[in-house]
Amino acid sequence: MNPIDKLTNLFSRLPGIGPRQAKRLVYFLLKSDNGFLLEFSENLRKLKENVLQCRSCYRFFSSHGAQNFICPLCSDENADSRMMLVLEKDVDLDNFRKSSVYDGKYFVLGGTLPFLEKNPEKRIRSEAFLKEVERRVQEEGLQEIIFALSANPEGENTADYLQKLAGDFANANGLKFSMLGRGLSTGTEIEYSDAETLANAFHNRT
Amino acid sequence: MNPIDKLTNLFSRLPGIGPRQAKRLVYFLLKSDNGFLLEFSENLRKLKENVLQCRSCYRFFSSHGAQNFICPLCSDENADSRMMLVLEKDVDLDNFRKSSVYDGKYFVLGGTLPFLEKNPEKRIRSEAFLKEVERRVQEEGLQEIIFALSANPEGENTADYLQKLAGDFANANGLKFSMLGRGLSTGTEIEYSDAETLANAFHNRT
Amino acid sequence: MNPIDKLTNLFSRLPGIGPRQAKRLVYFLLKSDNGFLLEFSENLRKLKENVLQCRSCYRFFSSHGAQNFICPLCSDENADSRMMLVLEKDVDLDNFRKSSVYDGKYFVLGGTLPFLEKNPEKRIRSEAFLKEVERRVQEEGLQEIIFALSANPEGENTADYLQKLAGDFANANGLKFSMLGRGLSTGTEIEYSDAETLANAFHNRT
Amino acid sequence: MNPIDKLTNLFSRLPGIGPRQAKRLVYFLLKSDNGFLLEFSENLRKLKENVLQCRSCYRFFSSHGAQNFICPLCSDENADSRMMLVLEKDVDLDNFRKSSVYDGKYFVLGGTLPFLEKNPEKRIRSEAFLKEVERRVQEEGLQEIIFALSANPEGENTADYLQKLAGDFANANGLKFSMLGRGLSTGTEIEYSDAETLANAFHNRT
Repeated sequence: MNPIDKLTNLFSRLPGIGPRQAKRLVYFLLKSDNGFLLEFSENLRKLKENVLQCRSCYRFFSSHGAQNFICPLCSDENADSRMMLVLEKDVDLDNFRKSSVYDGKYFVLGGTLPFLEKNPEKRIRSEAFLKEVERRVQEEGLQEIIFALSANPEGENTADYLQKLAGDFANANGLKFSMLGRGLSTGTEIEYSDAETLANAFHNRT
Repeated sequence: MNPIDKLTNLFSRLPGIGPRQAKRLVYFLLKSDNGFLLEFSENLRKLKENVLQCRSCYRFFSSHGAQNFICPLCSDENADSRMMLVLEKDVDLDNFRKSSVYDGKYFVLGGTLPFLEKNPEKRIRSEAFLKEVERRVQEEGLQEIIFALSANPEGENTADYLQKLAGDFANANGLKFSMLGRGLSTGTEIEYSDAETLANAFHNRT
Repeated sequence: MNPIDKLTNLFSRLPGIGPRQAKRLVYFLLKSDNGFLLEFSENLRKLKENVLQCRSCYRFFSSHGAQNFICPLCSDENADSRMMLVLEKDVDLDNFRKSSVYDGKYFVLGGTLPFLEKNPEKRIRSEAFLKEVERRVQEEGLQEIIFALSANPEGENTADYLQKLAGDFANANGLKFSMLGRGLSTGTEIEYSDAETLANAFHNRT
Repeated sequence: MNPIDKLTNLFSRLPGIGPRQAKRLVYFLLKSDNGFLLEFSENLRKLKENVLQCRSCYRFFSSHGAQNFICPLCSDENADSRMMLVLEKDVDLDNFRKSSVYDGKYFVLGGTLPFLEKNPEKRIRSEAFLKEVERRVQEEGLQEIIFALSANPEGENTADYLQKLAGDFANANGLKFSMLGRGLSTGTEIEYSDAETLANAFHNRT
């Protein structure tokens, strides 16, 4: 295959990049200097060498200076290990960290659960979740699991499933579950709010 | 002026209708039957006769069967008069009622306060607000004022201003202020949430 | 019915106005002064008295000063009566006039023909079109009919139909048909153009 | 720098990819299989080896099987060498080829000229253009140069500049200039057309 079309195809396989944009990217690269292309190529090639997946929270992190498979957030002794914030994916975690509101620990599920999913354990890291919950309660004094999932039925279903999964253990160990509060998000106008949001905002008024 | 252009101009003065749509509306009406035009014209002409503004909550309501200037919501004896929900405008009130979550009383401010507004009393019904608060505390057992304003700086500024305005009276009478809860609104995804919303959602977790 | 809901319903029947905007318009009118409401009501009531439909080109025009049912464009002796521009609707005509490129006569079809339309004579003024073509050839020296219809299959179908309808008469009287030229419209970028547009632009290059 | 942030930065330098999407791409790649990453990396690294820029039309083409620096379109003996279509960029050429309307030769300018550009020779390949025009007239029987540039002031300015540049040579050699035709592009509606497009469509009626 033509090398222009070949690289266009590879770019098209990335999420959110259509064939038209993919082609534009290839022509852009053809006009870029060689240094940029080499740097790009090298960083792609070594990506998985340079990045590890944390064996505790399952986020990706730089392998540089890492002595084991535990990320700096998980090994940070200043972080509050009594709380564990459960998120769908790495970008959610990055976005949450930007808010600077939370200084506890994390866990990345790797997905959410659609309704009527027959094999939930294939969609999310439910086994790893349960194991980590038990380990953190025993070793790190974990007291609260906070589900920070999207405010839609799939997010709620996921939280429900995990609460049931860890329910007995939680009851036996005084472990608390919580979910991010519902209400008006920044910029919300009353005129355009759905009934569920208004109801939540009313019940959670402060 | 040409009657087509004349009516186009009148439509253009309505909010959200540009000159192009206005003209399209006029041509549509020219092809409509006379009955529709007459009915439309009559309903416009009699609009203010047929609608009153409530002297208690300031919303608009049908004059049909009204015996004084008090709307059915304000005179409804089943509504919980211990609560008063304060809104910017009538459509906000209509939307809130659809959520069926609230069965208390209302008050429509008629606007919000921009920052550094020199004459706040001209922008919103602050005098009427204060008078109604006092009257409802004394006559109806009002205990809580809930600000249901848009989740933006102008909404917050408006709530601040009114709380200060009624502050002394509230303190002396055990009157409580509250605001709609902040957090994730329906459909919000963690990845795209702003830091303020995540912080609110975290603090208001349930 | 509640007069607010009643007028909301009437506004909702206008093209491009949804129930939410309709309600906003009614609340806007409730806060407008009485003069505006009366003027609006009057202009609606008298719309059809004040506007006539031209018996030659079928556009709508002000009845003020009109001595018969012929509009000023049709009776304008300075306009070039050798050309007749055929349009779908009044707003098309208004937009075309703004371009100031054409000083001939007009005809408004009142619609376009979808493919496989069984009763084309009900969709557009085909009978009136034919009658006007014959009259204008005989009385006004008409030589060219220009179809100024949208550049889509329905527009082309309409032009085809009318050319066939008037074909024999046109052949017998040396009457010419033409269509607006196809090519790049203002702002078109080559990268995003469809193949048909590029083909037309290539064949019609200047 | 963190390898995730590093690759995110590299992706962000590509046109149309913001920092948020860039990060999402990196996390996607972290979850992709190694084969895909290696293939992507390899194709980037060898891109410039595998692609040449044609010394006649300046488009990019596969070096595979190329015996000199002339692309298959330029060396195609079946193509009509009497015409030369001048385009801004490679994607324009690719899009034009899809229309299958043209079987002549090409030339890619590499840009367009803004108004008041002081150094036009740095923005587009004007020198190469002039040299190719002369060579093609003398060696290949070139008779017509077709400017296929975007229908905006910058595109027109570019065509004007090149016509002046090659004007004397063209006059002396009977070389003709043309531009893609202006008019209604596919899907254009009369109601929403600008005056310039209607004027062009009227003058270029067919």
